[in-house]
Amino acid sequence: MHPAELDSGVLPLEDVTVIDLTQVLAGPFASMTFGDMGAEVIKIEAVGRGDRSRNIQPAPAYFDVVNRNKQSIALDLKSEEGQAVARRLASEADVFIESTKAGRAESYNLGYEDIRELNPEIIYCSVTGFGRNSPYEDVPAWDMLIQAMSGIMSMTGEPDGPPVWSGLPSGDLGAAMYATQSVLAALYAREQGLIEGEWIEVPMFDAAISWLTLRAGHSFGTGEPFPRAGTRHPSMAPFGSFECGDGGLLIIATGTDSLWSDLCDAIERPELYDDERFSTVADRLENREALVAAIESALEPRDADAWIERLHAYSVPAGPIHDTCSVWDDEYVQQRQLRQRMERDGREDADMIDHPVHFSNLGTRLEIAPQELGESTDDILERYGYTQAEIGRLREQNVVE
Amino acid sequence: MHPAELDSGVLPLEDVTVIDLTQVLAGPFASMTFGDMGAEVIKIEAVGRGDRSRNIQPAPAYFDVVNRNKQSIALDLKSEEGQAVARRLASEADVFIESTKAGRAESYNLGYEDIRELNPEIIYCSVTGFGRNSPYEDVPAWDMLIQAMSGIMSMTGEPDGPPVWSGLPSGDLGAAMYATQSVLAALYAREQGLIEGEWIEVPMFDAAISWLTLRAGHSFGTGEPFPRAGTRHPSMAPFGSFECGDGGLLIIATGTDSLWSDLCDAIERPELYDDERFSTVADRLENREALVAAIESALEPRDADAWIERLHAYSVPAGPIHDTCSVWDDEYVQQRQLRQRMERDGREDADMIDHPVHFSNLGTRLEIAPQELGESTDDILERYGYTQAEIGRLREQNVVE
Repeated sequence: MHPAELDSGVLPLEDVTVIDLTQVLAGPFASMTFGDMGAEVIKIEAVGRGDRSRNIQPAPAYFDVVNRNKQSIALDLKSEEGQAVARRLASEADVFIESTKAGRAESYNLGYEDIRELNPEIIYCSVTGFGRNSPYEDVPAWDMLIQAMSGIMSMTGEPDGPPVWSGLPSGDLGAAMYATQSVLAALYAREQGLIEGEWIEVPMFDAAISWLTLRAGHSFGTGEPFPRAGTRHPSMAPFGSFECGDGGLLIIATGTDSLWSDLCDAIERPELYDDERFSTVADRLENREALVAAIESALEPRDADAWIERLHAYSVPAGPIHDTCSVWDDEYVQQRQLRQRMERDGREDADMIDHPVHFSNLGTRLEIAPQELGESTDDILERYGYTQAEIGRLREQNVVE
Repeated sequence: MHPAELDSGVLPLEDVTVIDLTQVLAGPFASMTFGDMGAEVIKIEAVGRGDRSRNIQPAPAYFDVVNRNKQSIALDLKSEEGQAVARRLASEADVFIESTKAGRAESYNLGYEDIRELNPEIIYCSVTGFGRNSPYEDVPAWDMLIQAMSGIMSMTGEPDGPPVWSGLPSGDLGAAMYATQSVLAALYAREQGLIEGEWIEVPMFDAAISWLTLRAGHSFGTGEPFPRAGTRHPSMAPFGSFECGDGGLLIIATGTDSLWSDLCDAIERPELYDDERFSTVADRLENREALVAAIESALEPRDADAWIERLHAYSVPAGPIHDTCSVWDDEYVQQRQLRQRMERDGREDADMIDHPVHFSNLGTRLEIAPQELGESTDDILERYGYTQAEIGRLREQNVVE
């Protein structure tokens, strides 16, 4: 039986506790993944304010989408008593992940050295914008800036237009994914006895640069920047977006000669395959305008959906250009149930994207719906040994919320 | 001492062996990361052909950039004897990662069930385009198609232009990163005795959709697609690219009111901060044209580099728009030594991007330079018990190369 058909079972991080002092996207996406995999994630937020993304519109959807499977505790980390609570939590944790400004965690007595003294086995992960002790240490990192400085923007846009921003927040996502993978690697190493504890730094900028991969290979090999391709692949053809009879766009991705042959059959223009203007990929690139015109003329009789179905029947890579609303109606996305809702007492449901990986024996979960600021403050304090009287006093003094 | 300053030490995957039956980007990027972390990675390639990316121009730079730390063995998997070699390798491995077409690995007797019978502890990871047993199972996945279908293209481009391709191969990268993280999670679970072995499926399409994160949150909350932003952030201002005196572009990312105040000081236009057209972020978005004009006029006296230095001194997020050549000359990128070269006997050096994460006790390595097709065939066969006579016969019959 195939993984996708099986219900999930064992949670790989079921014995792991994560203290999470991150906000907005990079850190929260990583800590959500730990929660999906079964970890207990305690999200520390500032009293009276919370994760900055709680106030980014549309609220709370913006916050909700990366904050399931976490328990929210609101603390005043500027106060000694608030710091004492955070340190008590960290003293029993496996992982501490933070994305505060350089020096901030240390000023809260929550730097790596502070936590290691309490808990030598801690795996402490700092998600930074630019690395510590670097020329840009104090420059706040925003996704567009990381995309610009790493080269991502330079290869995005129309060939004759300016570099544009990729709507996918690649800078944040890179840091999130590397934070997740490096903490997992450290947990594995610790479990094997290779290390006692660990300090990890994941800078957004370095992560984005590592993602250049083949695009960097292009420049290493040619000495030229990777070009902006707009809607056409720079080295394959036909490969890009094409207009159909209804004016709708579809993508056809003919990356090999054999797919080109299949495409000619699918669009009922076998003569194009024998046309000497289109014999090799070099010919097709050279005569791209004529090629696009011939294909769009062949696409005239049907709308995009009908063509996609037909192209799929010929195993030609093709598909619609979904937007961030229509994607959820796609037949595949529906079948895989990638969009999920989690119910909440007395609040509207929260919309979610399910974890995308399928395991056979392991699993992931959607268990704790995104919480309001401080929703688990009392529960957590009690579990960590605070009495009702102490909790009352801390709340009265605005140390907790 | 901070992680970035320390030499690396223990390799987290030093006892792990990975059999790698993947090509081009998604699978090879994942298996390279295992190699960086210390795993022994045996890359199985087709005799006479090898990884398809060996022939993509510029060769070999395109291939090299994601294929360090691997030993190449060339096998004819269509032959029973070639399959027997692969099965012997898999029988002693920890991880088997493949990205073959649906049904192909099974036709080679290298499907999950085949390998599990030989080696019940195997962690078997299938990187697919679209998930198995799905409506698009047989549709070949290409990065642009995944970007189009997942919504990534729809939010990339100029507001009044068509959706364009993000030059960053996000579709492949998503699958690579989830393959890496899920194999690490499975290794950790296996080490703890939670599972015996595992089968993991990572579809590119599902991975890309999970990356929509906050962009999906926007649509969940508003019912509207996330817009194409071109070179301007849709909900913050001033935030985007600006022209300086020399005609050069820079990015200024003023994401908060306090950064806006700092920016006005840095560009010596404190009066802009008091201008009622620019009081709140809503005002600045409404009067964006006037805002951009005022800022670009203030930027006139200096070139982009000089402005970036000055803006950094005021802690205003700003930076250049690097291309995939100029990024390597950046002061930070130089300091962090993100570009590396590996020497090869009798061949040109290979250019690399170093692993971006810094550990304190753990480390990553750059050890085996990217190999030629079958460069380790003999070594591997010998290690796995084949005699010189057997190796000679297999080579003569074109089972190995």
